[in-house]
Amino acid sequence: MSGSLVIAGLGPGAEELITPQVSEAIDKATDIIGYTPYTARIKPRPGLTIHASGNRVELDRSVHALKLAEAGRHVIVVSSGDPGVFAMAAAVYEALETGPVAWKSIPLQVMPGITAMLAAAARAGAPLGHDFCAINMSDNLKPFHLLEKRVRLAIEADFAIAFYNPRSKSRPHQFERILDVFRELCEPARLITFARAISTADENLHTVTMADATADMADMRTVVLVGSSQTKRIADTEIVYTPRSAS
Amino acid sequence: MSGSLVIAGLGPGAEELITPQVSEAIDKATDIIGYTPYTARIKPRPGLTIHASGNRVELDRSVHALKLAEAGRHVIVVSSGDPGVFAMAAAVYEALETGPVAWKSIPLQVMPGITAMLAAAARAGAPLGHDFCAINMSDNLKPFHLLEKRVRLAIEADFAIAFYNPRSKSRPHQFERILDVFRELCEPARLITFARAISTADENLHTVTMADATADMADMRTVVLVGSSQTKRIADTEIVYTPRSAS
Repeated sequence: MSGSLVIAGLGPGAEELITPQVSEAIDKATDIIGYTPYTARIKPRPGLTIHASGNRVELDRSVHALKLAEAGRHVIVVSSGDPGVFAMAAAVYEALETGPVAWKSIPLQVMPGITAMLAAAARAGAPLGHDFCAINMSDNLKPFHLLEKRVRLAIEADFAIAFYNPRSKSRPHQFERILDVFRELCEPARLITFARAISTADENLHTVTMADATADMADMRTVVLVGSSQTKRIADTEIVYTPRSAS
Repeated sequence: MSGSLVIAGLGPGAEELITPQVSEAIDKATDIIGYTPYTARIKPRPGLTIHASGNRVELDRSVHALKLAEAGRHVIVVSSGDPGVFAMAAAVYEALETGPVAWKSIPLQVMPGITAMLAAAARAGAPLGHDFCAINMSDNLKPFHLLEKRVRLAIEADFAIAFYNPRSKSRPHQFERILDVFRELCEPARLITFARAISTADENLHTVTMADATADMADMRTVVLVGSSQTKRIADTEIVYTPRSAS
């Protein structure tokens, strides 16, 4: 009895943004594992066991998934967005690397999804149309000094920057300090887009200049896109884009 | 008679990676516009006009699309991958910005897709599991000194780096010079993944150390993923991943 493990991305929220590859895999699975808000997006059916878990238990969840697959189940670990971008794929591989050797023989596939920054950029225009970077602001994963160093270098490189998990109740001041770094190094007219829960009923998108940005414009469901020095708004529209060329 | 314009991402190649949102939009369109290899992926049907064009005519193609939409057609500009990542969205907005004011009233939507680096990362493991950046190596869009500066800063920031369009016949030596920058600044064991035509029949994936990398391992259909200092290969497997945490 040979099990399997898929790590699948459900995209940013809308059904129409889930790839057929992922939908078909879900139809064939015996077990779905994930953080509660994501497993809530899976339709129950006979023969499918849904294992919902809390936040910040990514390694436990990964071990659970690998054990079930080892026991012959067809398991899907679901993430929102893309599983390879600040989501479950790296956690499963961390568990795999430190676990029993037998886990290395489990058939394992990562199925990509539409990650939040790409859904947000599509709604805003094309702010990531030139070189860009993606930075996770969760400070339980790296110290603040490293985050700040990366932001300073990314500004110097003139990347557009997508920030994931910009703000939570446990660290209300961190995003404010990052905004201060932008104010120190960038012109006040630098554009910043707050994209919340894109493609869901709670969707909200607004773009302001760095001079007008405040930390409370973001929460944990927001992706923040900061433009490069070349990013602009098209007059008389809300469209924000970064030209393809730079000199 | 009111037309519309959609800029849609077809994903990296496989049918099963095209979102239902994009498939439905294609079913309703009157005109599809794009670079020939991408329009070739669209199934002809009565009532649909397919306009295929060559490479490096992105602005002409955008103007054509906007004129058709203005004339009442339902037009889709197709890109491979995601239209917002080194693809057609920014080109259409450049044309919109400099075109007739009336174009600003055309209903316009960007539909995201699975961009090449995410498909490549999913196949490789999770090399983009921590902070990363995406850099386009097409030197017709920026001078080499700016590309080199960005790469140096990205290495200093310890980002994983995804390179799009690493190499073409018109600039065979540029990628070699970038490999030299990595050899100067990174340890020889730094991992580099060459992901060619992922999810198509021509798919090819291999990971080597920087010491063993040569420029001819890439062509224009390759996305190159260079790991951060933390990126590793799981022993006795081909899996490459970057742990979620950094210190």
